[in-house]
Amino acid sequence: MNFTAEEYSNRLANVKNKMSEKGIDLLILSDPSNMNYLTGYDGWSFYVPQGVIVVIDRDEPIWFGRKQDSKGARITTFLKDENILGYPENLIQSPPSHPYDYVANYIHENKWANKNIGVEMDSYYYTAENHKRLLKQCPNAKFINGHLLVNWVRYIKSEAEIAYMKQGAKLVQAGMQTAYNEIKPGVKQSFVAGKIQETLLGGNEETQTGGEYAGLNMILASGKSASASHLTPTDKIFKDNEGTIIELGGVKHRYHCALSRTVYIGKPDHKIEETLKITNEGIERAIEKTKPGNTCHDVAVAFWDVLEKYGVEKESRCGYSIGLGYPPDWGEHTLSIRKNEKTVLHPGVTFHLMAGMWMDTWGLELSESIRLTENGCELFCNFPRNLHLV
Amino acid sequence: MNFTAEEYSNRLANVKNKMSEKGIDLLILSDPSNMNYLTGYDGWSFYVPQGVIVVIDRDEPIWFGRKQDSKGARITTFLKDENILGYPENLIQSPPSHPYDYVANYIHENKWANKNIGVEMDSYYYTAENHKRLLKQCPNAKFINGHLLVNWVRYIKSEAEIAYMKQGAKLVQAGMQTAYNEIKPGVKQSFVAGKIQETLLGGNEETQTGGEYAGLNMILASGKSASASHLTPTDKIFKDNEGTIIELGGVKHRYHCALSRTVYIGKPDHKIEETLKITNEGIERAIEKTKPGNTCHDVAVAFWDVLEKYGVEKESRCGYSIGLGYPPDWGEHTLSIRKNEKTVLHPGVTFHLMAGMWMDTWGLELSESIRLTENGCELFCNFPRNLHLV
Repeated sequence: MNFTAEEYSNRLANVKNKMSEKGIDLLILSDPSNMNYLTGYDGWSFYVPQGVIVVIDRDEPIWFGRKQDSKGARITTFLKDENILGYPENLIQSPPSHPYDYVANYIHENKWANKNIGVEMDSYYYTAENHKRLLKQCPNAKFINGHLLVNWVRYIKSEAEIAYMKQGAKLVQAGMQTAYNEIKPGVKQSFVAGKIQETLLGGNEETQTGGEYAGLNMILASGKSASASHLTPTDKIFKDNEGTIIELGGVKHRYHCALSRTVYIGKPDHKIEETLKITNEGIERAIEKTKPGNTCHDVAVAFWDVLEKYGVEKESRCGYSIGLGYPPDWGEHTLSIRKNEKTVLHPGVTFHLMAGMWMDTWGLELSESIRLTENGCELFCNFPRNLHLV
Repeated sequence: MNFTAEEYSNRLANVKNKMSEKGIDLLILSDPSNMNYLTGYDGWSFYVPQGVIVVIDRDEPIWFGRKQDSKGARITTFLKDENILGYPENLIQSPPSHPYDYVANYIHENKWANKNIGVEMDSYYYTAENHKRLLKQCPNAKFINGHLLVNWVRYIKSEAEIAYMKQGAKLVQAGMQTAYNEIKPGVKQSFVAGKIQETLLGGNEETQTGGEYAGLNMILASGKSASASHLTPTDKIFKDNEGTIIELGGVKHRYHCALSRTVYIGKPDHKIEETLKITNEGIERAIEKTKPGNTCHDVAVAFWDVLEKYGVEKESRCGYSIGLGYPPDWGEHTLSIRKNEKTVLHPGVTFHLMAGMWMDTWGLELSESIRLTENGCELFCNFPRNLHLV
């Protein structure tokens, strides 16, 4: 296992405490990150219904999924065999049958059908159909929204989690260096993307470790496409006098460290250099305000004060919690760095301070992954924040 | 755009026909593949709510998503600006506010709140919360399940779609060859995974094209882990006398060609070689039965007849439709190759004939991506099906 038995046990205890506060007897988790957090389960099987059930008075969580994936659960989790349930293959993608009929039946078998059942209403892979099946087949249960309940337990990271994110940091720095080395006029984006992935997964002498697929794919876009926030590499060719935004994740045991930078081929326009300097000043002021006791609002104000001083506009948030993740996201959906968000920062909180400056016909990105320490904060990466010129 | 205006127009007409049959006035699509199919939209923005709305009496679909992503919609779709809606940033991950409040409001503004509204009840990213918001805020609408409606329109591929899948085939063959070249005792899985991704994305002289991220990440697992179906590469080291299952996707313009093979280091056990031969015989018989007019059942019977002849058991389906995809899947969720599935095969249908043989302590995989022709079928790849020995 990637964490000690004690750490998994603490996680479960913390989740049960939150369940008690909300009056939840059993909690059905469908977010793969939350499943991994409580059991260690790690497989690309979230394209079919699966979950982890936490029962308030049971020692171990229960994993359920497709029968063929239950072997993966035996290999990657610490769960006893009796707590690993494989539903039959004939429920896979064959409407009107559905895997949540199996889940509802399991709830009845265990006499939980009149209990308070927590479900992650807005989590990835908890579809409207899943919920409809449970509502219909367990009409005497009381359903309580447990969305983000586990995510908020994940809000403060342990030293062991931080250690994996530090390995992710080495990988993402190496990946960004590869981008810097490979971006040249006339080269295809897809070629550079291949080189970057080679580094992010395979590592190098400095990283000492290999990596894993990221919850969010590499974002890489040039020229006008860099004015949009989430475009991915294609066969387009890098051209002179174009900027390229690059957002990468280094991943170890599903823990992410993200990093964004901007590369320019040729001599950049004054406005691009100037906007990057302003953005960097904003990042610096935001980092200064990142300390325990301050709120997300405090950090956001420090960032936007700089932008406003120079008359630069940015509507979208400039940061979000980061850590454990599976596609489609590496964000943990707890804190956001934006004005009026009063979430308090504590030691062990980690976030991606992400300044995406998506303008009318161009864009730039600059970011740092940060962890709160006892007295302030520390950057995961040590990578220059200038506009990289080719 | 990756397809002609005529092709997009035909797709929309076909979807509207199905909507009419079901009495749907407007259809809200949340599956990123279906969004791409009707508008061309391509961005890794599906980690926040977004969708495409097809209105039965409007010429163009409507895209909605986060405001910062609306620029990506302007760049990657053919839609008029008036049909691209960006919802405000303050709805992002800030409960109790929610982007579907915006969608519900938009429905009211257009006087659709008493219409028949189709939603993809069981599609990726249509959460229980999304549906709850619509139900509550549009109590006079009649909601109709439009899950798989667009997927079934996608069931038969055009020549242009097939052409992209053929490019994917070149990429996936190159990727598998890289796996064969790089797997050696003492090498880390993550290192090989990096080399494979370099090929899948960057291409080589034979592919003539670069690729894209796949809807399903590379599956690569060795030894006992190969007995599970969906484990992904880690820092584990390849060892003598272990088999490794590898499942890859080559992707062009979001169209996938998948390929699975098995590599063995050393001299394989008789049972592994024997099982692979039997599996290959099953694949060959299944391919012979893959022709227009036959059903999925016919193909499945041909495959399982061989397995039963030799006393080999396999519970899970041995194939599924493949083509356009985004994480978490490259399967299209229409046909499955299994007994008693009466879906009829037609020219232009494409599927991944996938024999995953996950045994007690070991496993093997063997697969082909296939397209139906006028008289029979054609494999996308031309890659030996033997157990590859290192």
